[in-house]
Amino acid sequence: MTIEMKPIGVVAEVTEPPQEGQSFMTRQDQREKLLIYPEHREGLTGLEPGQTLQIIFYFHLSDSFDYITFSHGQQKVTGVFNCRSPRRPNGIGIDTVKLLAIEDGVLTVDGADMLPDTPILDIKPAPRHHRRPPEGESK
Amino acid sequence: MTIEMKPIGVVAEVTEPPQEGQSFMTRQDQREKLLIYPEHREGLTGLEPGQTLQIIFYFHLSDSFDYITFSHGQQKVTGVFNCRSPRRPNGIGIDTVKLLAIEDGVLTVDGADMLPDTPILDIKPAPRHHRRPPEGESK
Repeated sequence: MTIEMKPIGVVAEVTEPPQEGQSFMTRQDQREKLLIYPEHREGLTGLEPGQTLQIIFYFHLSDSFDYITFSHGQQKVTGVFNCRSPRRPNGIGIDTVKLLAIEDGVLTVDGADMLPDTPILDIKPAPRHHRRPPEGESK
Repeated sequence: MTIEMKPIGVVAEVTEPPQEGQSFMTRQDQREKLLIYPEHREGLTGLEPGQTLQIIFYFHLSDSFDYITFSHGQQKVTGVFNCRSPRRPNGIGIDTVKLLAIEDGVLTVDGADMLPDTPILDIKPAPRHHRRPPEGESK
């Protein structure tokens, strides 16, 4: 069974691009602009700044993977399904971001770590329990 | 650009299957068994019961979509990227679940809402801020 997908958009701008020698896994969260292709823009209806979104994307620069890999987050060797490495059997990535602005099919988001030119596959509102409370709120 | 993916496993058992007339969107979270195919099982190394995981799957029964759709969760008409409907341009679903057991390539998880026979595309540990605190804990 082979499943085919086509990008709905692309990462058009990254405010702080990765520096030389700085790996994907160790970069800080950054502000990014996601360009949604014109034919898909009607699907953005209802999105509003302030929402927490899941951005589903494709690790377009990863062309292979290992089942056992080094997890930068956990600083140990472990299974590929026990880490969020970009090198995986199906190269799907998920960033949970805050939507800062939306205009003319371009979403400005905070908290992403996608590389420039990353293909976007899907956008969903985050489940309710994923939404971090604002600072100072007790719940 | 077309991206090809192949399932790493399948939803093998759903403890409380959906009842007649009960839609995918209105079902309660349930306990499920995910069978990971033998060739991918090495990638499960390090996973342990108690972890919160993101299960990425394919909405295999959805063969079309609309850009404007009815959101059951929000009880209103809105854009497909502003809801978690299974009918979407790329049929990717994400469930955040608790891993209850793992044995012989079968993961028993709690909190999923996948249908039986759903193809599994990927498994990742949930980001730290997605992990719900145990009952009674203040953070």
